[in-house]
Amino acid sequence: MRVNAGLEGIVVADTEISHVNGEEGQLIYRGYDVKQLARKITYEQVVHLLWKGDLPQQKEEDSWTKIWKEAYELTEEWIEFLKIIPKEVDMLSSLRSILATLDEPASPPTMAQAIKFLVSVPMIIAARYRLLQDLSIVHPRKDLSFAANYLYMLRGEIPSTAHVQGLDAYLVLTAEHGFNASTFTARVVTSTESDLISAIIAAIGALKGKLHGGAPLEVADMLEEIREVNRAEKWMREKLENREKLMGFGHRVYKTMDPRAEALRDVVQKNAKNEPWFQFAVQTEQIALALLKEYKPHRQIYTNVEFYTAAILKAIRLPKELYVPTFAVSRTAGWIAHILEQANHNRIIRPSARYVGCKDKK
Amino acid sequence: MRVNAGLEGIVVADTEISHVNGEEGQLIYRGYDVKQLARKITYEQVVHLLWKGDLPQQKEEDSWTKIWKEAYELTEEWIEFLKIIPKEVDMLSSLRSILATLDEPASPPTMAQAIKFLVSVPMIIAARYRLLQDLSIVHPRKDLSFAANYLYMLRGEIPSTAHVQGLDAYLVLTAEHGFNASTFTARVVTSTESDLISAIIAAIGALKGKLHGGAPLEVADMLEEIREVNRAEKWMREKLENREKLMGFGHRVYKTMDPRAEALRDVVQKNAKNEPWFQFAVQTEQIALALLKEYKPHRQIYTNVEFYTAAILKAIRLPKELYVPTFAVSRTAGWIAHILEQANHNRIIRPSARYVGCKDKK
Repeated sequence: MRVNAGLEGIVVADTEISHVNGEEGQLIYRGYDVKQLARKITYEQVVHLLWKGDLPQQKEEDSWTKIWKEAYELTEEWIEFLKIIPKEVDMLSSLRSILATLDEPASPPTMAQAIKFLVSVPMIIAARYRLLQDLSIVHPRKDLSFAANYLYMLRGEIPSTAHVQGLDAYLVLTAEHGFNASTFTARVVTSTESDLISAIIAAIGALKGKLHGGAPLEVADMLEEIREVNRAEKWMREKLENREKLMGFGHRVYKTMDPRAEALRDVVQKNAKNEPWFQFAVQTEQIALALLKEYKPHRQIYTNVEFYTAAILKAIRLPKELYVPTFAVSRTAGWIAHILEQANHNRIIRPSARYVGCKDKK
Repeated sequence: MRVNAGLEGIVVADTEISHVNGEEGQLIYRGYDVKQLARKITYEQVVHLLWKGDLPQQKEEDSWTKIWKEAYELTEEWIEFLKIIPKEVDMLSSLRSILATLDEPASPPTMAQAIKFLVSVPMIIAARYRLLQDLSIVHPRKDLSFAANYLYMLRGEIPSTAHVQGLDAYLVLTAEHGFNASTFTARVVTSTESDLISAIIAAIGALKGKLHGGAPLEVADMLEEIREVNRAEKWMREKLENREKLMGFGHRVYKTMDPRAEALRDVVQKNAKNEPWFQFAVQTEQIALALLKEYKPHRQIYTNVEFYTAAILKAIRLPKELYVPTFAVSRTAGWIAHILEQANHNRIIRPSARYVGCKDKK
């Protein structure tokens, strides 16, 4: 009996949603290379692509936009509810506590139900954040995009174009990434014919794991410690001399440049002259890569998505306790795509185990 | 590339917790046949067995009992919280909404933390149930066993020995059953190094699925429709003539008598003279088995655990909306056993998928 610990290399399903090609440094959503997508389309359009199989055609754009606008509604009940959750409860726990009480959508959910659910994630996070800061709640604006609305609800003021573009590119590029542990969790729950909310709440639980969601935080800590570009070389050289790792470089799957890092860098470079943190991140990356070449000449080490995630989230002044929750915001789109696919081709996911305990104690 | 849909037959881990032997109709918890356990030990002792690997030795009994007693504490905050959850939110959703706000236990949790968490499940369910019925909350009593406390908190009066024994046997026999979908969900979440609460909340989501938790409800409906033993033969004969299924018979894994059904029947028979529903269930089963032999002479069909689950839960007057939540009460013990085992031998569970979508759309 072969034990497949961690199910590594075991193919559990066919999928049409995304293709992670680590060898060639490529990530494809439904046939589109994400590097192309991040430069020209919004998160709302990527959601259409992931859920419906293609980008919205021109004639579909209006109705698609309308569904989103109608979804923005932060209810008084949620606010009351958020107030009663003890302050020390972390953001993802508070989020799923509220999500658990929402009306279950139909199975399969309509697009309007799925979008209403998706939009509730940043609304709840922003409201909870403002309550914890003793700030007044900011309700969403129907004339703002998804990315702009999130920043607006957090800050209470219309964000700059550079910030919106940075966040939108981040949302697009982290919306989906194959059968990772949280997405797989969502599919296992869905396979019992459970509901969308149960699957998302379960996936949030997996995302809370140390092995899953937290890496950009460490990059942000590093960038904060370096602080100024003229301190970067000395700081990083010290780390490398002490055989410590530089955070934000290297990836388990991608054997070449992480395509998401490449696309995020493009956006960052484009907006660098308006945003000092972007400038600083690009220059720091160059110094890091040169040092890595010097210290590890026989290894090819590339920048990963966490490096530019940290750069962008720092630049848009997102507080660090919102990094992982913001990852949940973007990834909810991917989770829902997989929930829909699993429900359409369902087979209950139920592996076996080998019993190695005692057989007869009595 | 072989696609293992549903992971059927794929062995994902070694386990020492339980062994489901379908061919021989045997279910083993850590070396003990459950049929023996249900007759002589309590749920509290089974929890010790599942979590710590063996039944409590005589010298451990006192400290084990003490930990349980100290765990019973229904806080005012939970009650306030339960009051704010809209009435139409179902029991399992309300339960996980509260669980999401609890302090995360250490990783790995201490036994006291794990028991405190386990005990919170029936406390929350009972409090929520009474609030929905406009009844006053009943706080747990430290002098009652786990099974007795659950019934006491639901009803506000000390339950009879027959009822406590019936529920305790049910709790013991459904505490654990290998790598089913909810248990596997808990292990996937744990494999990211996430916390106990996240894993349990995720498992509850899987349990909500139609393919997972609901079968005893259909048996209860059947028993209610039959109502009196002298109506049983006519009622079931009609069903079989119409080629309809009798609920509570046959099992996917067990090719012979479901050992849990056998053990529950023993308990039911023992208490039948004090409890008319037990008597009725045993007689109805005999009639059903005789009819199944008559109508399906070439198939061996046995009584399954759902039949006697329904009989017991009906007899102890548990309202039907609490059947699945009560299954969550018992199974939390098994989930926690698997969470502890997964955390001790961890490998992140991350299978692959085969991309069958378009490769290059642009």
